Amino acid sequence: MRKVLNFSAGPAVLPDEVLLKAQTEMFDWEGSGISVMEMSHRGTQFETIMENAMTDLRDLLELSDDYEVLFMQGGATSQFSVVPLNLMREGKSADYVCTGQWGKKALKEAKMFGKVNLVASSEETNFYDIPEFETWDLDPQAEYVHITGNETIGGVEFHWVPETGEVPLVSDMSSHFLSRHIDASKYGVFYAGAQKNVGPAGLTIVVVQRSLIGRSDRLIPSMYDYDNFAKSGSMSNTPPCFSIYVSGLVFKWLKRQGGIRAIEEKNIKKAELLYHYLDNSDFYQTFVSKDCRSRMNIPFKTVDQNCDIKFLKEAKINNLHELKGHRSVGGMRASIYNAMSIDGVKVLLDFMRDFEKKNG
Amino acid sequence: MRKVLNFSAGPAVLPDEVLLKAQTEMFDWEGSGISVMEMSHRGTQFETIMENAMTDLRDLLELSDDYEVLFMQGGATSQFSVVPLNLMREGKSADYVCTGQWGKKALKEAKMFGKVNLVASSEETNFYDIPEFETWDLDPQAEYVHITGNETIGGVEFHWVPETGEVPLVSDMSSHFLSRHIDASKYGVFYAGAQKNVGPAGLTIVVVQRSLIGRSDRLIPSMYDYDNFAKSGSMSNTPPCFSIYVSGLVFKWLKRQGGIRAIEEKNIKKAELLYHYLDNSDFYQTFVSKDCRSRMNIPFKTVDQNCDIKFLKEAKINNLHELKGHRSVGGMRASIYNAMSIDGVKVLLDFMRDFEKKNG
Repeated sequence: MRKVLNFSAGPAVLPDEVLLKAQTEMFDWEGSGISVMEMSHRGTQFETIMENAMTDLRDLLELSDDYEVLFMQGGATSQFSVVPLNLMREGKSADYVCTGQWGKKALKEAKMFGKVNLVASSEETNFYDIPEFETWDLDPQAEYVHITGNETIGGVEFHWVPETGEVPLVSDMSSHFLSRHIDASKYGVFYAGAQKNVGPAGLTIVVVQRSLIGRSDRLIPSMYDYDNFAKSGSMSNTPPCFSIYVSGLVFKWLKRQGGIRAIEEKNIKKAELLYHYLDNSDFYQTFVSKDCRSRMNIPFKTVDQNCDIKFLKEAKINNLHELKGHRSVGGMRASIYNAMSIDGVKVLLDFMRDFEKKNG
Repeated sequence: MRKVLNFSAGPAVLPDEVLLKAQTEMFDWEGSGISVMEMSHRGTQFETIMENAMTDLRDLLELSDDYEVLFMQGGATSQFSVVPLNLMREGKSADYVCTGQWGKKALKEAKMFGKVNLVASSEETNFYDIPEFETWDLDPQAEYVHITGNETIGGVEFHWVPETGEVPLVSDMSSHFLSRHIDASKYGVFYAGAQKNVGPAGLTIVVVQRSLIGRSDRLIPSMYDYDNFAKSGSMSNTPPCFSIYVSGLVFKWLKRQGGIRAIEEKNIKKAELLYHYLDNSDFYQTFVSKDCRSRMNIPFKTVDQNCDIKFLKEAKINNLHELKGHRSVGGMRASIYNAMSIDGVKVLLDFMRDFEKKNG
């Protein structure tokens, strides 16, 4: 375990093995005599890196041939435009569900491109829960239904998959991608910025059902066009090569951990450790409804704001970094992605217990 | 000098010092205890990296306050859409000059967004020269004039700046950015993918005159919006942090080399060495007109195609890599960006002489 424990919401902690490999190969990737950062993306060396990353990711996701994996750029925020441009035909509409700040941003951006219906929102209850599916005002003619699988800021996660029938389901999975098993066939599109569970910021992963590609009748910038990326194997221009390489190392690491189902078990344990302690403490508070608590991002507060500030200061002195909550929520937030070990969470818990004893 | 000399057109060779620093700091950036890849982009550590990179780049370019520097994503190809979206108002038009494959692509993409005039092209002469300025059919009402400062594939470079008067000049400088002094005030916008003279692919640098920001009346996806990037200091969402960090190391390295004017002198020498030899050889041929030869990308051929194949094979055995010409041109291409030393070029020349002796 490294000295500093990094609970950042993203960019976030990466596995030691991955950093070590990237460090070792910095000047010489597998005997090539050059760095991955210096490789032509058209050469056989980078082609190998690209193919391995694609194949390993497909394996991890247990993807069928009905789905394309695209390596794009611009983060989830770019997908807030890319999704409507590719899926929402002129004159049609889309349904959006808001369970936090990211869902709101996705909806706002989509409004540029057509009619967008807010079919469910938990804003009234401060995004502490997910509206029950029965209350969603879904339009069977909608081009798609957009949800945010895990809200990084509020710490709200879907633990069930909405059954949207013939209407494709689209999910922003940025902050829980690869943290849990998913049945890809339930989705039309899911996407994620790399900088949580995947690798360095700059890579955006999109998984899209082939039948949805080329659906739109709009003029789409080529770097926003699913069809262009699918046809070119995400290589119509220079991809973010080094981010893809490091992400590929993470995929290999995940396979060595036993794949998604194994890491999910570990993630469940880590989250249970923290929530169990929080639930049994009068000193710390957590707000999100039990049935939609995020396993990845766990916001909490102490008894008052000054005490929160003290907590953050002392945590940092104890090498527990990046625990500050998002400015819109306040308090603390522990982001415990795949690369955060159970032991790391236990160190945090020890500190929290100790802090409670001294300040409670 | 490393064993393998890398003449890739991009991603391309990086300075040893830069790779060494990135390697050394892989697990611990300046005592932070974490990797740059793991840093929150909202933290003071990454803010420092970002600010230093921005300031150093402004220094290198000798930029006045009339210009904004934006760190975007998606490469020059994304700018082929971003430029018209931001600069071309509805119902207006833009002028394009084509001196190679990249200019053609820029023009094709811009056509999606409005009326685009091809005001000059050297396609008829196989892109071996730049049409004389007097022949350009410029529209004084155009929203901008777009040129490709250096054509990576054909090896055609502007050694003069078109005087477009009141009409803003836009240049795709991807493959000669930071290789030569430029007078920024002559341009409305110039942009470059990082993966030639700057750093790892994934970062796109845009320099834009402030008065042009927010000019467009179009709906622009937020990740394509100059105004959004300018207002947020290129941090409205997670930027490609590691690419920015490595690029920042390159900027520091460039400053240690004496800045742009010093590196330009070195680049002139390197190019002269190669062209002088090519001009005096009956064995090798080069095609581009002398007054617009690129200093960065130097295409050449031997007497026939089989001999080219032999050249490339033997070059590789001699650790001279990535010399294959672009598929649309054939033959060879030596890309000699800032990080390629004069000694590296001399090693290539020694090999070329030796090969000529044996096969000429």
